[in-house]
Amino acid sequence: MLPTVNLRPPFNITRASHIVLHVADLKRSRDFYTNIVGLVVTEETATECHLRGLSEACHHSLVLVQTRGEATCKRIGFRVFFEEDLDAADAYFKERGLPAEWVEVPHQGRTLHVSDPIGTKLELCAQMKTCERLYLQRELFKGAHAQRIDHFQIFAPDCHALCDFYSQLGFRNSEYLAHGDKVLGAFMYRKGTCLDLAIVENAGPKMHHFAYIIPESHLIFTACDLAGNYGYADSVERGPGRHGPGGMLFVYLRDPDGHRVELCDGHYQTIDIEVEPVRWDAASLSTNVRWGLPAVERWYFEATPFEDTPTIPPAKKPQPTTLEAYVQKQVAAKAAAR
Amino acid sequence: MLPTVNLRPPFNITRASHIVLHVADLKRSRDFYTNIVGLVVTEETATECHLRGLSEACHHSLVLVQTRGEATCKRIGFRVFFEEDLDAADAYFKERGLPAEWVEVPHQGRTLHVSDPIGTKLELCAQMKTCERLYLQRELFKGAHAQRIDHFQIFAPDCHALCDFYSQLGFRNSEYLAHGDKVLGAFMYRKGTCLDLAIVENAGPKMHHFAYIIPESHLIFTACDLAGNYGYADSVERGPGRHGPGGMLFVYLRDPDGHRVELCDGHYQTIDIEVEPVRWDAASLSTNVRWGLPAVERWYFEATPFEDTPTIPPAKKPQPTTLEAYVQKQVAAKAAAR
Amino acid sequence: MLPTVNLRPPFNITRASHIVLHVADLKRSRDFYTNIVGLVVTEETATECHLRGLSEACHHSLVLVQTRGEATCKRIGFRVFFEEDLDAADAYFKERGLPAEWVEVPHQGRTLHVSDPIGTKLELCAQMKTCERLYLQRELFKGAHAQRIDHFQIFAPDCHALCDFYSQLGFRNSEYLAHGDKVLGAFMYRKGTCLDLAIVENAGPKMHHFAYIIPESHLIFTACDLAGNYGYADSVERGPGRHGPGGMLFVYLRDPDGHRVELCDGHYQTIDIEVEPVRWDAASLSTNVRWGLPAVERWYFEATPFEDTPTIPPAKKPQPTTLEAYVQKQVAAKAAAR
Amino acid sequence: MLPTVNLRPPFNITRASHIVLHVADLKRSRDFYTNIVGLVVTEETATECHLRGLSEACHHSLVLVQTRGEATCKRIGFRVFFEEDLDAADAYFKERGLPAEWVEVPHQGRTLHVSDPIGTKLELCAQMKTCERLYLQRELFKGAHAQRIDHFQIFAPDCHALCDFYSQLGFRNSEYLAHGDKVLGAFMYRKGTCLDLAIVENAGPKMHHFAYIIPESHLIFTACDLAGNYGYADSVERGPGRHGPGGMLFVYLRDPDGHRVELCDGHYQTIDIEVEPVRWDAASLSTNVRWGLPAVERWYFEATPFEDTPTIPPAKKPQPTTLEAYVQKQVAAKAAAR
Repeated sequence: MLPTVNLRPPFNITRASHIVLHVADLKRSRDFYTNIVGLVVTEETATECHLRGLSEACHHSLVLVQTRGEATCKRIGFRVFFEEDLDAADAYFKERGLPAEWVEVPHQGRTLHVSDPIGTKLELCAQMKTCERLYLQRELFKGAHAQRIDHFQIFAPDCHALCDFYSQLGFRNSEYLAHGDKVLGAFMYRKGTCLDLAIVENAGPKMHHFAYIIPESHLIFTACDLAGNYGYADSVERGPGRHGPGGMLFVYLRDPDGHRVELCDGHYQTIDIEVEPVRWDAASLSTNVRWGLPAVERWYFEATPFEDTPTIPPAKKPQPTTLEAYVQKQVAAKAAAR
Repeated sequence: MLPTVNLRPPFNITRASHIVLHVADLKRSRDFYTNIVGLVVTEETATECHLRGLSEACHHSLVLVQTRGEATCKRIGFRVFFEEDLDAADAYFKERGLPAEWVEVPHQGRTLHVSDPIGTKLELCAQMKTCERLYLQRELFKGAHAQRIDHFQIFAPDCHALCDFYSQLGFRNSEYLAHGDKVLGAFMYRKGTCLDLAIVENAGPKMHHFAYIIPESHLIFTACDLAGNYGYADSVERGPGRHGPGGMLFVYLRDPDGHRVELCDGHYQTIDIEVEPVRWDAASLSTNVRWGLPAVERWYFEATPFEDTPTIPPAKKPQPTTLEAYVQKQVAAKAAAR
Repeated sequence: MLPTVNLRPPFNITRASHIVLHVADLKRSRDFYTNIVGLVVTEETATECHLRGLSEACHHSLVLVQTRGEATCKRIGFRVFFEEDLDAADAYFKERGLPAEWVEVPHQGRTLHVSDPIGTKLELCAQMKTCERLYLQRELFKGAHAQRIDHFQIFAPDCHALCDFYSQLGFRNSEYLAHGDKVLGAFMYRKGTCLDLAIVENAGPKMHHFAYIIPESHLIFTACDLAGNYGYADSVERGPGRHGPGGMLFVYLRDPDGHRVELCDGHYQTIDIEVEPVRWDAASLSTNVRWGLPAVERWYFEATPFEDTPTIPPAKKPQPTTLEAYVQKQVAAKAAAR
Repeated sequence: MLPTVNLRPPFNITRASHIVLHVADLKRSRDFYTNIVGLVVTEETATECHLRGLSEACHHSLVLVQTRGEATCKRIGFRVFFEEDLDAADAYFKERGLPAEWVEVPHQGRTLHVSDPIGTKLELCAQMKTCERLYLQRELFKGAHAQRIDHFQIFAPDCHALCDFYSQLGFRNSEYLAHGDKVLGAFMYRKGTCLDLAIVENAGPKMHHFAYIIPESHLIFTACDLAGNYGYADSVERGPGRHGPGGMLFVYLRDPDGHRVELCDGHYQTIDIEVEPVRWDAASLSTNVRWGLPAVERWYFEATPFEDTPTIPPAKKPQPTTLEAYVQKQVAAKAAAR
């Protein structure tokens, strides 16, 4: 049912690398990501702020860009291994009639802007300015001690089709969600962890969330407590909880512009090709599979649009069991029982 | 507003000690408390199971009693310091026309059964059979590593009145919840921690929950994960979360009979008399004060009745912002906005 | 073998409260205790700094006093329950010909300075100025998140004799260390935890260490990492390790003046009088009983003298198996084997 | 100073995979690895036991083989990506006159036995039987919850030469230890973490240790406590501590046959080629760089020989500052000061 993976892809994407987000108030957003998530500022100007996780040696994994317009996602970034992988990527996208453009991006080597078939804006580079890893500089730690960027989740109107596209680029599935023969969600990886890119069927392209690894589970609580203390109690949108697919402990926060960031613990190692992807039945996920309440409706449907990018609805609107539906059903059942 | 505390009480209750619960299936309940909560069985017969926390030196803090009838709470138990405190208690309750009866209870010294003015069934003793503390026997650890019983929460139709009764017995308030001049919840302690007994205004007497201390916050997740793995995913009723009053991290589980047990982390030390109780405004608690969703309605209203004990409704039914009310209000607001 | 405890003591000491230390460089010591231990400054002048743990509601548990002389310990402080307990204490010490003097101490109520029979300088008070507990203000957390002062350990030339003195004041033993009939160490408590005061036989009176509770075990590592980062790697004198008696996880740090502070996790609850003290055979403690290397010699023998207080040697010098002795024995055995 | 890495190696080794050890008592060793380390038994016969970490999907990462002879290391195993990588490896080793032999190994696909230039016995395969990952089956967890094998450390008489050999196979350096121009230790990786293989200059080839990842730092203490409880207190050879190079929290245990296993926390991600290896000056490591005591001599010099493999001494015997040397120097200094 899953698309065939090209294990000898035309160019070597190595990992999820960074994300570039528009924000309405640079200082406010920077404070959110440093005080609560625990990122550190590598460099900051009046209009841009580059941040990285405590164990990251590269210049940035999150770029905040001041905007007066809509708080969109400009790009999600992936790393390729060699410089020549960029050239191969350039050719690959152009051959398929997809956008591919060389751009100058500060602190990065040669950078290629491409879009996948549904318009998801990607940025590829093979080099970034390096910095000291700060993962042992405890006196600098704040927030939830976010270590490094882990993955992105995007919405796509046709999950299978987009999964096929990324499978051709060598992305493999660790776990996936299906209803009968239909793939509704795919956890895809390049870097040997559970995922670099999750694709979920819904109106897209949109950026649903990006995730940072926290090193110990108690820091999930730290993130929530700090969110509350800094005035973001309502931004703790979902969790703390334990995922079905992937099995990570998680909490989802909405940043001051509504961009969603996940904090999750490390999870298992992939790499070996004989290990089969884990299948989850969408029906069994109508409530949380492990424990806890279903996610609120906005977690399922709200996501950040990409800059200047129209979204396409899926053939069939997803019908997850939201918290709202779950609660209303229970209320109705109780009323009926009286 | 709070009743005056008698700092030289007529007898010395030292701490919350144990609880005796009816259960419909002894083995099933024992497995719940050992596998998920992490209690250990001190002694077990065909009809009773005595359990204790890992760091407890006394024979039992939870007694499960097989019943074919209703799964009520038989008693909540407190310890007194000296044997003579029992005699003073006996006289004290009798003088006030309250039930007081000497009984034989296995594994305990002389035991006095008394009831408070609303009929809450209490059991007092000054001695219990002792056992080895197991808190370093990691090879025996299971579940969430519950260390020791911490407190009980009961419902009372008039919180202030019952708070007054226990204040006369030397219980002091660490924190309390009020609406204007009216006390709606009282955290009362004897043992120098945040609480031994919480009294909340609602139809009572009922036993809302009893709580065990877990030693590290990650064990909150352990409890949830194990609840899910053992088929009790729906029994994770509230949390993980962070309390407003008291500030503990918590999760509430419903056991196989619906009795509610809380797991929470250790909290601050009381003891000193000059420290003022912390006041919480009931209105500000309409949703969780720190982060997270409101509790479901049943968390607010369901509780275990005491054996053969009628309950009295409060003068005014509590109107907490339940999850159900919160969600329905949001749904309505969204519909109105369309 | 242990002295009889007076369970109805002449006055009610409730807990270890605070310690007053001379330091050579106030700012340096304050930075040590805030950055590494995680205490917060309640108040600071040019010559004194008052600090408290994150969950403490009282004004100070550690007072640093700038000195140009020797970095002695001025006092260890205990709380009593009522004001009248102070008067009873005053009478009690005077009746026994022991020093007792009323003094004015900022931020404290009426304060009594007394000395025990070997000259240990004690400070008693029933009231202290109160402050907000900061245990949920995570944005203020630093260091190892020390929560509250737990206990003192002192040296006494005759452990049994001093244990007897404190037993008359109602201190009970949770655990003790003996060699044959001779008590060599006593863990004594008033507040219902494992200890408020440890007495170890050695040249005294001296203050061996004072201890703060850290809320989770990973913070032991945090303390060590920060000690290293701030230039105090060599001050990590012993541990991380697991105690025999008491069973706490611990690390001992030496502050800039050589005063020793222990960070340890919470441990079990005492309170009930039927629970027997745990006996440890001194011989079995010649190396660490659980795992890890023996402590270095200076941990056994170095301690802070009390101000203007001569020390008395024990009848027999202790002969613990130090790391030095252990290593030299192993080296000799290896050489012999060649 | 470091050898040049071949970023397009002749075949694709993906990760450290497994280790095969001789043991004198299969049951005793199996109990050690399950009860203390926390591995699970995948399959067991009278003469062999296959174990894996909780998050591993492959059949085994540790194979214990009953022997009546010396408790040697039979092989350390690496995975390659494709079957054809095995053929390329076979050719590569044979071309260089190095041993290469196809063998049948249960539960593995085609398997190639090769030796590196100093005789280190390696085993390569591209497929292994798969099993369920158990990382969420908390009811099965024991010991320190070891998640997955991480790396091996071997001794080599000429570190630079062997580092060169593995560099040709695509192993890159994350960190290394040098004295002047001489490389004395190399942390080499393939899988995008800090290391798969550490090479340290000393008499070799020998297997110094193999390491498993534990998911949270508190489990370091769990391992120690369980080691103590199960009678292996003296087997806690080094730590808990924090590494200089790599920065992991660690503890080293000696198993019943003296094989050394490290438990360490997860660490940073490598992958990107522009990030420079971190250099450590060997001289600065004469005591632990961060905090804590130096390692005992046997940690530096004892290691498991490979089966039927002679060892070659280094040109110059290493002279680390052992605990023994450190203590004797301190004792001598103290004596001189008297």
